[in-house]
Amino acid sequence: MTTPNPALEVAPKMAELSANVLFGDVWERPELSKRDRSMITVATLVALYRTDQLRGHIGRALDNGVTKEEIGEIITHMAFYAGWPTAANAVRVAKEVFDSR
Amino acid sequence: MTTPNPALEVAPKMAELSANVLFGDVWERPELSKRDRSMITVATLVALYRTDQLRGHIGRALDNGVTKEEIGEIITHMAFYAGWPTAANAVRVAKEVFDSR
Amino acid sequence: MTTPNPALEVAPKMAELSANVLFGDVWERPELSKRDRSMITVATLVALYRTDQLRGHIGRALDNGVTKEEIGEIITHMAFYAGWPTAANAVRVAKEVFDSR
Amino acid sequence: MTTPNPALEVAPKMAELSANVLFGDVWERPELSKRDRSMITVATLVALYRTDQLRGHIGRALDNGVTKEEIGEIITHMAFYAGWPTAANAVRVAKEVFDSR
Amino acid sequence: MTTPNPALEVAPKMAELSANVLFGDVWERPELSKRDRSMITVATLVALYRTDQLRGHIGRALDNGVTKEEIGEIITHMAFYAGWPTAANAVRVAKEVFDSR
Amino acid sequence: MTTPNPALEVAPKMAELSANVLFGDVWERPELSKRDRSMITVATLVALYRTDQLRGHIGRALDNGVTKEEIGEIITHMAFYAGWPTAANAVRVAKEVFDSR
Repeated sequence: MTTPNPALEVAPKMAELSANVLFGDVWERPELSKRDRSMITVATLVALYRTDQLRGHIGRALDNGVTKEEIGEIITHMAFYAGWPTAANAVRVAKEVFDSR
Repeated sequence: MTTPNPALEVAPKMAELSANVLFGDVWERPELSKRDRSMITVATLVALYRTDQLRGHIGRALDNGVTKEEIGEIITHMAFYAGWPTAANAVRVAKEVFDSR
Repeated sequence: MTTPNPALEVAPKMAELSANVLFGDVWERPELSKRDRSMITVATLVALYRTDQLRGHIGRALDNGVTKEEIGEIITHMAFYAGWPTAANAVRVAKEVFDSR
Repeated sequence: MTTPNPALEVAPKMAELSANVLFGDVWERPELSKRDRSMITVATLVALYRTDQLRGHIGRALDNGVTKEEIGEIITHMAFYAGWPTAANAVRVAKEVFDSR
Repeated sequence: MTTPNPALEVAPKMAELSANVLFGDVWERPELSKRDRSMITVATLVALYRTDQLRGHIGRALDNGVTKEEIGEIITHMAFYAGWPTAANAVRVAKEVFDSR
Repeated sequence: MTTPNPALEVAPKMAELSANVLFGDVWERPELSKRDRSMITVATLVALYRTDQLRGHIGRALDNGVTKEEIGEIITHMAFYAGWPTAANAVRVAKEVFDSR
């Protein structure tokens, strides 16, 4: 495996909870579709300026059926709810992810 | 009118932009459905701990077809992406809105 | 019961995770003492301006052996790391909690 | 004195630093005028959603020569840089302060 | 053009609103001078830790007549209102911008 | 000196306050041990996503007697109080610091 998860070494309990609770349980719950969960996750990571985590979740959103156009519109919507700088940052990250696929 | 918009007095340009750009233009764009916009708006207001604005947007989300069960699930999802205290705050606000309808 | 947990109604999965994972598992882990967990929790809630949740966790910190003097010193330290307004808010909340006990 | 400073009791070192360093030294430095300091302080408190501290600093800004019209324009500007919800919150607070004077 | 705006591709509506509303309308309003707008924008970007956007706006502030000494004083003021880490980050960014001009 | 403090040039008053007030006075106060101050500082920098400042303070925490295991547990605890993305970011930073020592 080329990119081992550093949480396994630094915070093994968190790694376990990520696998078993966050991804193994919450993301799998049918109360919200994976597309809906990806949309709210991307929106929140834009709004909170979590640049590194946003990168991965834009890719996951595309995998879960959110289109590039919808991601651009989420970012535009976020410009109003979390401020232009968060949206400008997200545009840069989304461009990188789109170009890499 | 019993609850006039204080922005008309304090920040009239912002009131104009709210009416003409944010609600008159962005929210009406078909690139995202109103239900999708309400979901990402509620998620973001939960995550940013914008208590007063969250109250109004939970009501708007219900009007836009997001169910109470889905709002609860958005809050649970946000507990992981923005922290338990933001979700605990949102639970309290959602309870008030649900009880008032 | 006079103050039922609104999460049981609004977000029952979150209520379950609070009981079983956050308080039933993480808070009980011996890798950090309860006093240490209360100190970092209070500091974080001060810094993030999570007013409602700070109130409860100052009480819990006192129960876990953090003294009033230490809470005041945590707030003073946070003034530098999260800004004077977060500390001023925390002073007001701490005063309320101290006066109620 | 009808509203004693709770920091004197809860966090006396912070109260001392507020008086001697923040207000006694930094605010008095001529590198920025009091009007400029009030403008950036109000803008920051709007952006960070520090509701309680914003109230006092809007009053201080008026005392330091920032006009009501300028405060409304700062809030409008902040709508773009920190998001509409922070501006909507500030409009409500500014209305209360303006009406009380 | 050597540095095309990625918003034109990723979020074209946001690019349009940036040009026509934020810069074409709000920044041009006479209710606040360009120097005042630059001061509150820089202060807010420092406080919100918006590192990438801060870089550009420090340059714009210099163009709008804010001096290097005033930018350093804004950062010092922000250390108290948004915390030492935001100011330390801004010092590093300002040093880069100052050295590049 | 190989890494001069840029604050001396950009914001000399802040550099003076860092030396004389924050590190010379507050960090030296016996009301909280250095270990306790490092724990709450690291927790806060994790929660606020202050990546650059977190790096230095993880090193300082190790010097002040906080173990690597405790730092991992602080990060796990913060996942719940400030959100998984802040903890994931901190894991990456802690891994870098641990590997460099």
